Amino acid sequence: MHLVTGGAGFIGSHLVDALISAGKKVRVLDNFSSGRMEFLEGHSKDDLEIVVCDLLDPSGVDDAMKGIDTVHHLAANPDIRLGVQVTDTDLKQGTIATYNILESMRKSGVSKISFSSSSAIYGEADEMPTSERYGPVLPISLYGASKLASESLISAWSGTFGITAWIHRFANIVGSRGTHGVIYDFVHKLRNDNTRLEVLGDGRQEKSYMDVQDTVNAMLHVIGMHDDGVSLYNLGTDQTVSVSTIARIVVESTGLADVKIEYTGGDRGWAGDVPRTWLDVEKLKSTGFQPKMTSEEAVRGCAENLISEIGI
Amino acid sequence: MHLVTGGAGFIGSHLVDALISAGKKVRVLDNFSSGRMEFLEGHSKDDLEIVVCDLLDPSGVDDAMKGIDTVHHLAANPDIRLGVQVTDTDLKQGTIATYNILESMRKSGVSKISFSSSSAIYGEADEMPTSERYGPVLPISLYGASKLASESLISAWSGTFGITAWIHRFANIVGSRGTHGVIYDFVHKLRNDNTRLEVLGDGRQEKSYMDVQDTVNAMLHVIGMHDDGVSLYNLGTDQTVSVSTIARIVVESTGLADVKIEYTGGDRGWAGDVPRTWLDVEKLKSTGFQPKMTSEEAVRGCAENLISEIGI
Repeated sequence: MHLVTGGAGFIGSHLVDALISAGKKVRVLDNFSSGRMEFLEGHSKDDLEIVVCDLLDPSGVDDAMKGIDTVHHLAANPDIRLGVQVTDTDLKQGTIATYNILESMRKSGVSKISFSSSSAIYGEADEMPTSERYGPVLPISLYGASKLASESLISAWSGTFGITAWIHRFANIVGSRGTHGVIYDFVHKLRNDNTRLEVLGDGRQEKSYMDVQDTVNAMLHVIGMHDDGVSLYNLGTDQTVSVSTIARIVVESTGLADVKIEYTGGDRGWAGDVPRTWLDVEKLKSTGFQPKMTSEEAVRGCAENLISEIGI
Repeated sequence: MHLVTGGAGFIGSHLVDALISAGKKVRVLDNFSSGRMEFLEGHSKDDLEIVVCDLLDPSGVDDAMKGIDTVHHLAANPDIRLGVQVTDTDLKQGTIATYNILESMRKSGVSKISFSSSSAIYGEADEMPTSERYGPVLPISLYGASKLASESLISAWSGTFGITAWIHRFANIVGSRGTHGVIYDFVHKLRNDNTRLEVLGDGRQEKSYMDVQDTVNAMLHVIGMHDDGVSLYNLGTDQTVSVSTIARIVVESTGLADVKIEYTGGDRGWAGDVPRTWLDVEKLKSTGFQPKMTSEEAVRGCAENLISEIGI
């Protein structure tokens, strides 16, 4: 059986769908702080168990670990910006949660973990696109720090206790069921006021985006290719999209005319924001994997999907 | 005033000596789990304050932060091997302790931190010598994981809250007042039984060593060169020394004849041991710093010093 932490969340619930489609039994572990039960609808009780539990509850984690073959650890504080206000959110929901998962695996003899890391670990890299071999990795957000700390714990568990691990360094992932991020923010701002769109920063920030379905397929592709040690891949697309382009795409997708786009200015959206992230995905592509959607297609698809879901 | 965490420990106490020699006032924060009061003898109360406190006590840390200009954060679990038995030692004494320091600095407006990291963060690197630009960094010990997690927190604090940080990735540091490590172990084994010396592993493990006095000088040199952002340097020497050479040097230094050196076998001393570490120190040398002692000189000096201190 596969355990998916954060399985009721954005990417987690898509992974649950994909695992069940592939004939696996899945147990979801989620505290439903941002996950939603409706993301898990449509599966039979034979295929899917749902455990409501916080990863900071070690005995709850131990219970959920029974009978598990592979852990897919996706649970995390989903909002990278919160670190500025409350500094221990990422430490607890990221680093300590990952420790609790690993320790429970060790005690239960579970030996395989797939982990969703982030391009945020690279901080303001001076090499673009940024490959897995880039160093030193100096995250600038507390979210990025917790992802790098979690990677390091997983790597140490592999080196010390012999587990197999797949670490996925995600670009910005977008698609249906998204609960945060720039597209989500823009659409919600336009629902509140359809005459203007406030954009944090100067709009020139640019990042790689990847469609969530491509992301889940890439994760399962990587897991299928390696069966020992630590396998680490950037998951993303070849291109970047700027924030001003995203603003334009979102406005186009709404069909609204005469929306005034207003920039707050500055080279980043908030403290800890990385102005430019562009992942080198040659390693992933060299395995034969090719994302179906470009960054811009993924952004447009996400915007159109969200607008049709919630209206404008 | 300078705050030195772990200031009663091996490297910390040498740093305290150097800071006071340079005319600084110093406050030591130490839980005395491995630090020793006698390492701090000889300083006047005008120059040195000693606070007995664990870094897991946030209010104690806050009290010690008052009036501090620069934090030198050296406190950590000193024995890398303990991670195999108790898996949360490094998480608590490393990662969470560093978080507590950073959060206390933020609340108190202290903006400078010098941090002792480790070559352990590189894990089993496939590039020798290993430069600061090496990636991906995949530590194999829980100690290494906690050092990388601490680096990432410090880097995030700099990116998010604007602190200045100096990160020192240490080679194996040796010298007087050492409380652990291979030379310490060998000398103590020979004190117990002067006919044989058991060596963990096959003796072919090789690492870079640096004399503690060179290390402290290098730290202060790096701090003097940069005054914003994150400055990250490997601190070490150009050479490696094998474990079997260390065994020979220690036996020679004792003056004992007919000691039988016995190897337990295997390519590493314990789970999480990195068989070969060799730091690229070109970046440090390019700043004009040159260690006074080679790896082998540092090892021999440490062995001779320890033997003269405790007898054989």
